[in-house]
Amino acid sequence: MTPTPTRADKFSFGLWTIGYNGTDPFGGPTRPHLDVVEAVTRLSELGAYGLTFHDDDLFAFGSSDAERQKQIDRLKQAMADTGIIVPMVTTNLFSAPVFKDGGFTSNDRAVRRFALRKVMRNLDLAAELGAKTFVMWGGREGAEYDAAKDIGAALERYREAVNLLGDYVTDKGYDIRFAIEPKPNEPRGDILLPTLGHAIAFINTLERPELVGVNPEVGHEQMAGLNFTAGIAQALDAGKLFHIDLNGQRGIKYDQDLVFGHGDLQNAFSLVDLLEHGGPDGGAAYDGPRHFDYKPSRTEDIDGVWSSAAANMRMYLLLKERAVAFRADPEVQEALAAAKVAELSAPTLGAGEGYDDLLADRASYEDFDADAYFGGKGFGFVRLQQLAMEHLLGARG
Amino acid sequence: MTPTPTRADKFSFGLWTIGYNGTDPFGGPTRPHLDVVEAVTRLSELGAYGLTFHDDDLFAFGSSDAERQKQIDRLKQAMADTGIIVPMVTTNLFSAPVFKDGGFTSNDRAVRRFALRKVMRNLDLAAELGAKTFVMWGGREGAEYDAAKDIGAALERYREAVNLLGDYVTDKGYDIRFAIEPKPNEPRGDILLPTLGHAIAFINTLERPELVGVNPEVGHEQMAGLNFTAGIAQALDAGKLFHIDLNGQRGIKYDQDLVFGHGDLQNAFSLVDLLEHGGPDGGAAYDGPRHFDYKPSRTEDIDGVWSSAAANMRMYLLLKERAVAFRADPEVQEALAAAKVAELSAPTLGAGEGYDDLLADRASYEDFDADAYFGGKGFGFVRLQQLAMEHLLGARG
Amino acid sequence: MTPTPTRADKFSFGLWTIGYNGTDPFGGPTRPHLDVVEAVTRLSELGAYGLTFHDDDLFAFGSSDAERQKQIDRLKQAMADTGIIVPMVTTNLFSAPVFKDGGFTSNDRAVRRFALRKVMRNLDLAAELGAKTFVMWGGREGAEYDAAKDIGAALERYREAVNLLGDYVTDKGYDIRFAIEPKPNEPRGDILLPTLGHAIAFINTLERPELVGVNPEVGHEQMAGLNFTAGIAQALDAGKLFHIDLNGQRGIKYDQDLVFGHGDLQNAFSLVDLLEHGGPDGGAAYDGPRHFDYKPSRTEDIDGVWSSAAANMRMYLLLKERAVAFRADPEVQEALAAAKVAELSAPTLGAGEGYDDLLADRASYEDFDADAYFGGKGFGFVRLQQLAMEHLLGARG
Amino acid sequence: MTPTPTRADKFSFGLWTIGYNGTDPFGGPTRPHLDVVEAVTRLSELGAYGLTFHDDDLFAFGSSDAERQKQIDRLKQAMADTGIIVPMVTTNLFSAPVFKDGGFTSNDRAVRRFALRKVMRNLDLAAELGAKTFVMWGGREGAEYDAAKDIGAALERYREAVNLLGDYVTDKGYDIRFAIEPKPNEPRGDILLPTLGHAIAFINTLERPELVGVNPEVGHEQMAGLNFTAGIAQALDAGKLFHIDLNGQRGIKYDQDLVFGHGDLQNAFSLVDLLEHGGPDGGAAYDGPRHFDYKPSRTEDIDGVWSSAAANMRMYLLLKERAVAFRADPEVQEALAAAKVAELSAPTLGAGEGYDDLLADRASYEDFDADAYFGGKGFGFVRLQQLAMEHLLGARG
Repeated sequence: MTPTPTRADKFSFGLWTIGYNGTDPFGGPTRPHLDVVEAVTRLSELGAYGLTFHDDDLFAFGSSDAERQKQIDRLKQAMADTGIIVPMVTTNLFSAPVFKDGGFTSNDRAVRRFALRKVMRNLDLAAELGAKTFVMWGGREGAEYDAAKDIGAALERYREAVNLLGDYVTDKGYDIRFAIEPKPNEPRGDILLPTLGHAIAFINTLERPELVGVNPEVGHEQMAGLNFTAGIAQALDAGKLFHIDLNGQRGIKYDQDLVFGHGDLQNAFSLVDLLEHGGPDGGAAYDGPRHFDYKPSRTEDIDGVWSSAAANMRMYLLLKERAVAFRADPEVQEALAAAKVAELSAPTLGAGEGYDDLLADRASYEDFDADAYFGGKGFGFVRLQQLAMEHLLGARG
Repeated sequence: MTPTPTRADKFSFGLWTIGYNGTDPFGGPTRPHLDVVEAVTRLSELGAYGLTFHDDDLFAFGSSDAERQKQIDRLKQAMADTGIIVPMVTTNLFSAPVFKDGGFTSNDRAVRRFALRKVMRNLDLAAELGAKTFVMWGGREGAEYDAAKDIGAALERYREAVNLLGDYVTDKGYDIRFAIEPKPNEPRGDILLPTLGHAIAFINTLERPELVGVNPEVGHEQMAGLNFTAGIAQALDAGKLFHIDLNGQRGIKYDQDLVFGHGDLQNAFSLVDLLEHGGPDGGAAYDGPRHFDYKPSRTEDIDGVWSSAAANMRMYLLLKERAVAFRADPEVQEALAAAKVAELSAPTLGAGEGYDDLLADRASYEDFDADAYFGGKGFGFVRLQQLAMEHLLGARG
Repeated sequence: MTPTPTRADKFSFGLWTIGYNGTDPFGGPTRPHLDVVEAVTRLSELGAYGLTFHDDDLFAFGSSDAERQKQIDRLKQAMADTGIIVPMVTTNLFSAPVFKDGGFTSNDRAVRRFALRKVMRNLDLAAELGAKTFVMWGGREGAEYDAAKDIGAALERYREAVNLLGDYVTDKGYDIRFAIEPKPNEPRGDILLPTLGHAIAFINTLERPELVGVNPEVGHEQMAGLNFTAGIAQALDAGKLFHIDLNGQRGIKYDQDLVFGHGDLQNAFSLVDLLEHGGPDGGAAYDGPRHFDYKPSRTEDIDGVWSSAAANMRMYLLLKERAVAFRADPEVQEALAAAKVAELSAPTLGAGEGYDDLLADRASYEDFDADAYFGGKGFGFVRLQQLAMEHLLGARG
Repeated sequence: MTPTPTRADKFSFGLWTIGYNGTDPFGGPTRPHLDVVEAVTRLSELGAYGLTFHDDDLFAFGSSDAERQKQIDRLKQAMADTGIIVPMVTTNLFSAPVFKDGGFTSNDRAVRRFALRKVMRNLDLAAELGAKTFVMWGGREGAEYDAAKDIGAALERYREAVNLLGDYVTDKGYDIRFAIEPKPNEPRGDILLPTLGHAIAFINTLERPELVGVNPEVGHEQMAGLNFTAGIAQALDAGKLFHIDLNGQRGIKYDQDLVFGHGDLQNAFSLVDLLEHGGPDGGAAYDGPRHFDYKPSRTEDIDGVWSSAAANMRMYLLLKERAVAFRADPEVQEALAAAKVAELSAPTLGAGEGYDDLLADRASYEDFDADAYFGGKGFGFVRLQQLAMEHLLGARG
């Protein structure tokens, strides 16, 4: 009954997700290291199509060239053995002590130069492995104290860094686009580019804005109390949804990284509905990887790791089934019409109408009956919501 | 001892702020209507330089032309009598039942047309009164239920509206710029353009982006848990800080609209420091009105209204004094240097340096001592923060 | 397919819920007044069993005795005509200007005396109508400013008030218990007794603690980011769940009062599961009214009011169906056992075992293999959660 | 000018605070291990009077008896050398993998027994070192998933554990009281006893409630958006403030553990005012340790550790100075009187007055002028708040 994931679903996982060892602010690891070959093999068996990673996930920070190459070769072999691809790569600029005040925007210039070098090296690897997206999560780019960070200067340095990297991939001919991943806080008190809105606004100040989009994460936007689906719709409107991180979060608190759908379930439903049906003619609005950036709970052993990985994909597919049924239900279509949802796609002005025409249209103002909206002209939004909930609950056939 | 506000401080107040009658979701008014002439007179006496208003603040929704004109004339006379100016005007698209699903993005097209007409009429008035900024707070542009609002279409309609209004002011030759005021929620479950980041990102999709900026409000960004000062720094970086709403908020909850500085005090301090000293050579980063968008608490009578109005200006001026002392303190300057705060303004690349040069610089990577940051190279941020707090507390002379 | 509400379900509604006229902080009414007879009639038709009200809902604050009595009589007749009962009554100590600093804990002693009188009068009415529960929501008992309210004194006054009312109902022989309804904030910046924990702690300081319990509201606890189901479990543990307010809230923000289940859906599921199956032998843990304290969205007309009322009951019954199926599923039972959920009900000490015995048990410490929990002894919580989600989604038969 | 800490100020620090090595969810240590003797020596020099610790802070989990004893002896010698005392001890039931589902309330009964043994052993050490308070922070007592934890059973097990430990210290004759430390979440999705209200409510269900109080932490209550000062006032009202954890938090997010006063500054001010002046006759309301449970920011080296430790004490003493001046200011006293703050301490009923007398008092209701509160009888709370802010800013001499 439950749908089964296939490669066509484009499900991908970070190596750091299934490989999360359980360390958190109040406790050390509860699980041993997970080898990359095991990771690739099991993900393939479960139906995923892709693996992603930070450089430091694959080979420890400070590895020798030989250690690094060995791990790269092992990954390549596993990819060849399974057909798993690497659609996205990202760089760790947050774990090592050197990045304690950030990478691209550390107050320490030498750190910034080191960070750029680390990223460029990893870009070469990303290109070598065929990744099309290079994610930048600036988790340490931020501050706890307002006086300690000149935000304007930080934005300049971030811009300088991304502009340089844009030159680099362009000149090298890499078929790679960048995706900035916003987060409001944690591990820093406040992080630069805290929401997808801030990130897109920043991208518009770059030299090559077309090369840079966003990689929004469910939990990150929800940590600011924002509606994730609405944010994704704005990212799509701006043409900036280059990648997406799916997971679960239960409200404004620390970053939980739960399984997708194990957080705000109804927002997960509307998200899948948007991704799968928000495009032209009701088709998909996004065709990139469905990337799970979650953490198997610290309470789990390795069996729990793999069942949690499977759960992400099952949740997505179940929600997709419900979205299909929701869109197909005649009563839903009738309720959508009553709520004038599609009427919002009709331009407010008529074809060729300008402000003078509008000013001349007495029906629009002088003769418009504003009073009719008191006690009347209800939108029926609650009825529509109830239908959505009933579809989500699988309660309508 | 306490500094006294003058016109040069450019303090302005919304008519709806001092005129707030105390209505909230659980109770009706506790204060009678405040007449606009009284408002202007008292603000002038207190040292403010400007009054702002929504159309419906000055004359009730649905007023006859005569009623409307009478109120406009009374305001003009009060302005002439006092020297108070109207630096900003805004339109109420949220109180009347007709706007129950929004104005520019109501699902109901007739409402959208009516909203445009209402705004155009108010733009004429704004121009007549010499206002240079026209604020758009889309408080009802949003939804409670994901299925009820096509966010992509809503953004298109919002864009259509602002583009049309941009044509209008341009053709009319009005010396007016628009400022979008973001808010994450309340009165809608989720509001379109929830943060200043989202608003700036949206502005970049307009036909005349140069005509549109933001009007961020302290409490609105803080309702999303965001650092207001950091947000203002990004708005300045983008050249989009066209206006600012100062008030106080105590954390993530309903919109409190407290007196400026009566909320997150240390963020208010860093904000004033940024506005007054964040510009080139340590000068002002923003020279527009310091606009208070607050509500005198419902517990107060009219005396409390005026003492709360005065409190806003006193808080600003006290914080400005402390910011001056903070910047002038040699120990602070030493701590800022130790924390390398200014080093962030130095480009990461040398003059003329490209990525090839960086790649060739062994000091940047191969010979860089990342280990030195373990146990060493501390930034001294806590010491700097403590100095800031001591200045805020007036504890350093 | 959708279950139909019956009187046995004990669904009740506040008169102020279906009667909400749409006023919010940024707009006036969008719907006309709803008459109490119409309310009772329609609720009865929809399958509810009870109506609740504040005094001021039924007759306006300041009504003459005759106006008051007329409305009481009309309500009684409607009850007789329909069979609808009044299981709970509450007093409005928050809307009128006189309560601007609270009722029982206003700084103004004359207001406190007036509040007590208003409540006593309403207790007489509650007894007359057969209500068994008298709710006290102290929405104005609080402050915006720490210096303005002596919290210790406020708690003393609150205690004095409840003690007096306890004397009153006891002496009068009323079969009424009190239920305190906590809320963290809104309309006050901070409200006294902000969570159900604080309320129960306070109740333990009363003269007649047995007479007083809590009336927790879904959204109120969730406004503090708390897990509502967990809170209800603690209230049940303390024997203090005297009444419950069901509605929906989407995170930490203003009080939304959405339809039950239209907020945090998975917590609504676990709540219904607890209420229906958390008692001895898997039976009901609570047998009082399922009271909906919600607001029909301001966008709706009167049809939307009634469809939203029906939606509350449908959501409850649908979730109850899913909880039954969840508990009955053998795979769930197996997963619960693997997760040792029931093992937590086994005392940690053996029968008759004391600390000396425990100290003597080498298996408990000296020979206990703590290391076995690294990489092993996973709890399988994610698998269990996934099963719960699949039942919630109606995806398991 | 800045006040200097002395032993009389009773400032204490956790060994884990100054010893925090910088590990967080996204990065490993940035500082080396801090030896306990160094910690004691430096704290003594800075003016602290006490050190506190978890067992695992002093000797690693799983230490041999000899290793454990060696560290205890070293601590004792350092105490003797400096005069530093150990006013509080606590047990780590959260870091080791064995506690991944909690200690007292792990679903696994063997873990619960092990946890009890670990605590009893540590109680013996606490008694040996003269500690008077034994803190219990149940950071892992909680769940991410509602179905995974029977909260009622968890409360029973927690109760069983505390009752047993109460027997133990009583029978042993230890002069030790317990203090439960609440926290809403992190590291678990939801933690049992999430606020001080829930903890006090729970304590009332124990066999020896007099032996158990609370240890509220500034940041923990603020992570639920609650007013810490108001919570402390309720804990004092209940006689349950046995210990206190001072630190700083900037809103609802992950647990920041900033320096005291570096978070919500005005709430820190009102807290110090309450602690120092909230008792009878304006004296101290609490005379126990002022315990700092903070983390030196990860960006700091060891110099930053010690300057941050000093900053905690300086902030407390500066706020204490301002509270003294606030209370002494005649204008403040006048504003407090105008706001009727002290009137709240006057009983609502007269001496000997019962409800019959109140009912007979027409002035309390029939002749009471409720209308006078519309437009009048303002409380002047904003003026009072402004005076408080000006004292906090050191702006009133």
